[in-house]
Amino acid sequence: MRRAVELAARGLGSTSPNPVVGCVVLSSEGYPVGEGWHQRAGGPHAEIHALAEAGDDARGGTAVVTLEPCDRTGRTGPCTQALIEAGIARVVYAVADPSAPGGASRLAGAGIDVVRGLLADEAAAGNAAWLTSVRLRRPYVIWKYAATLDGRIAAADGSSRWITSDEARADVHRLRARTDAVLVGSGTARADDPHLAVRGVSGAVQPLRVVIDTEAAVLRPGARVLDTAAPTLVAVAQDAGADELEGAAELLRLPRAGGGRPGVDLAALLGELYAREVRSVLLEGGPTLAGSFVRAGAVDEVIGYVAPVLLGAGPAALGDAGIATIAQALRLKVTETVRVGPDLRVTAVPATAARAAATGVSAAATASTAATEES
Amino acid sequence: MRRAVELAARGLGSTSPNPVVGCVVLSSEGYPVGEGWHQRAGGPHAEIHALAEAGDDARGGTAVVTLEPCDRTGRTGPCTQALIEAGIARVVYAVADPSAPGGASRLAGAGIDVVRGLLADEAAAGNAAWLTSVRLRRPYVIWKYAATLDGRIAAADGSSRWITSDEARADVHRLRARTDAVLVGSGTARADDPHLAVRGVSGAVQPLRVVIDTEAAVLRPGARVLDTAAPTLVAVAQDAGADELEGAAELLRLPRAGGGRPGVDLAALLGELYAREVRSVLLEGGPTLAGSFVRAGAVDEVIGYVAPVLLGAGPAALGDAGIATIAQALRLKVTETVRVGPDLRVTAVPATAARAAATGVSAAATASTAATEES
Ligand SMILES: NC(=O)c1ccc[n+]([C@@H]2O[C@H](COP(=O)([O-])OP(=O)(O)OC[C@H]3O[C@@H](n4cnc5c(N)ncnc54)[C@H](OP(=O)(O)O)[C@@H]3O)[C@@H](O)[C@H]2O)c1
Ligand SMILES: NC(=O)c1ccc[n+]([C@@H]2O[C@H](COP(=O)([O-])OP(=O)(O)OC[C@H]3O[C@@H](n4cnc5c(N)ncnc54)[C@H](OP(=O)(O)O)[C@@H]3O)[C@@H](O)[C@H]2O)c1
Repeated sequence: MRRAVELAARGLGSTSPNPVVGCVVLSSEGYPVGEGWHQRAGGPHAEIHALAEAGDDARGGTAVVTLEPCDRTGRTGPCTQALIEAGIARVVYAVADPSAPGGASRLAGAGIDVVRGLLADEAAAGNAAWLTSVRLRRPYVIWKYAATLDGRIAAADGSSRWITSDEARADVHRLRARTDAVLVGSGTARADDPHLAVRGVSGAVQPLRVVIDTEAAVLRPGARVLDTAAPTLVAVAQDAGADELEGAAELLRLPRAGGGRPGVDLAALLGELYAREVRSVLLEGGPTLAGSFVRAGAVDEVIGYVAPVLLGAGPAALGDAGIATIAQALRLKVTETVRVGPDLRVTAVPATAARAAATGVSAAATASTAATEES
Repeated sequence: MRRAVELAARGLGSTSPNPVVGCVVLSSEGYPVGEGWHQRAGGPHAEIHALAEAGDDARGGTAVVTLEPCDRTGRTGPCTQALIEAGIARVVYAVADPSAPGGASRLAGAGIDVVRGLLADEAAAGNAAWLTSVRLRRPYVIWKYAATLDGRIAAADGSSRWITSDEARADVHRLRARTDAVLVGSGTARADDPHLAVRGVSGAVQPLRVVIDTEAAVLRPGARVLDTAAPTLVAVAQDAGADELEGAAELLRLPRAGGGRPGVDLAALLGELYAREVRSVLLEGGPTLAGSFVRAGAVDEVIGYVAPVLLGAGPAALGDAGIATIAQALRLKVTETVRVGPDLRVTAVPATAARAAATGVSAAATASTAATEES
């Protein structure tokens, strides 16, 4: 299964809106005879690749797969069918498929010995964005920021080139390549005229670039984000006059934020993106929009690039998130710290999500048991 | 020498105003026959301990020592003399002694083969505070802070208990035990009534507690920092009326800060502390005082305890340091990152100091060569 999880990871960034999946087929004697992973949306599933490589050696053998095999005819045939036809005797999978349960019970019904839960935590971690997204029916949101050790994103006069290193900025491009969409607010669009496409990552699938410009007051034809390097969506208020943008970008009209707050409704934005098969969003700033996402409870992962620099003045990385006292603070759990050139990259997830993930797997497993018992 | 550097480190926190020093004596056949380290100010130097353990086996042997042996009769006799009398044939030392050059040339004059510079960087790192202090004739200043991932030291309403974990707070006590003095400003004294003594570290030497209270307006008898757990010094302006503090604490009268800035003159404070044999100061806050230290170029090391917590509002870890634009930022070099419980501890030194340290050793070595040539 560890090998299957490794194989699955190769698909990161190119399988969306599908999960990443890896599969190893063992012969009846227990030797590995086929490997595969889901390479891109619309292409064959991991099981199909692995079965093809195994050929006749699959008969009486075991399929080890990171996600419950699908029982659905989508752009490709159901994997359950392929496994049954190949004569597989045993299927071992790590994590139940919340988007399409029923695969395990179908296999069991065909007399195949089905085992679930092996290395479930590791397999779930590899699919964290997709699993979260399917569960919440909105994209998984990674808030990325670059700040000084004292938490500033710019100096007092607004200058910010460059706080972090070349290496950190190159790392951000790899991050973009792994997500389906990149998002900024109009403040960042105004200040930085950002490009937001992936550069310098070979074979990268370009993310959808999304700019929220409530009044359509900031973006103008000629903005770098409106070039042809990647698709771009401009989110504006339902009632905004956006004549100047017609034809220059695809517009997404959204309700305004509730509670008398400025800007557009973020839940509506995320729902629209989900409907467009966006499963992960890299929130790239700035502090105002990040504050709104934290307030909305819509940050699933935080990646901070921290430069060993002190400023003592200047705007903070995170703006108002409606947190007034220490008891309301958003508590996270650090999952990784890495040096990136001279800088640090700190990755953390909300502490509640960290707990949910630890138990969420068994919840999924329970659902799959229920499905089996129903059959 | 690696062993000698290890031995030296055992003295950290109890040798001030002396450096830490480690020594290994090898017999004439090259076997280790004696080890020692400088354990406390006023006690025997490392060489004396090691020679005592080696006894007659030192004759014709080699002394490997982290710092140039002293040639001075202080509270203990000169080590050069002891090495000569023990019949040592060869002395290998790592770093020249900037406080009392002459040891190496005295040994060479007595016909001993003297080699310097072995593992100089490692040995210098072990003595960084002492070497910097002697060079600058002021204490080595470590600025320690505890903040959220977004750089806040408290929430919008001022609440801050607790941002960092029990483990991080215990770690701060170990840090205090390693430094000669702990320093806060009146803002912290007012807000937190801190105790500032070391708790929970066995065998710790208590640091001098220093509070800057310019107008003697904040500290009052009964403040926790004025108890008997450790000595306390209250720094006030020369012309402050401090009647209420007379008898409750030792007062240090200082000139006011120049340039029309509030507070006391920090260079004068550091000079006074140096004169009192304080070689290292742990600056424990708050943001205002830390800003003044950064502005004065008087921060030699930064230790940040970063909690995986987001607030989005509240005071920043570092206050105004006179930095207006990104080009003026204080650039550091990260020397260590460690997880402390759920938190991160990030240690960094000013990038210029990091460069100076790399070349400073050769500068010290040059000075020692000069001394040798003079003799
Ligand atoms: N170091 C970093 O990681 C980083 C990253 C990005 C940006 N930055 C810096 O951040 C600065 C810009 O900061 P910013 O905070 O103004 O930029 P921002 O967060 O990108 O944009 C904020 C704007 O987005 C619009 N918006 C629409 N709906 C919103 C909602 N629901 N919640 C919040 N905002 C919403 C609002 O303007 P309208 O409603 O009027 O459209 C709002 O003023 C620039 O200096 C940039 O360089 C730094
Ligand atoms: N999280 C942490 O690491 C940490 C650590 C410490 C404190 N804190 C928090 O920080 C807050 C207090 O902040 P603060 O900035 O007011 O405290 P502070 O920096 O400890 O005290 C500042 C005061 O020190 C005096 N001072 C004297 N000479 C000075 C000089 N040369 N430069 C600057 N100040 C000088 C000034 O008052 P006078 O001249 O009137 O005496 C000044 O207002 C509290 O909420 C506390 O809890 C947090």
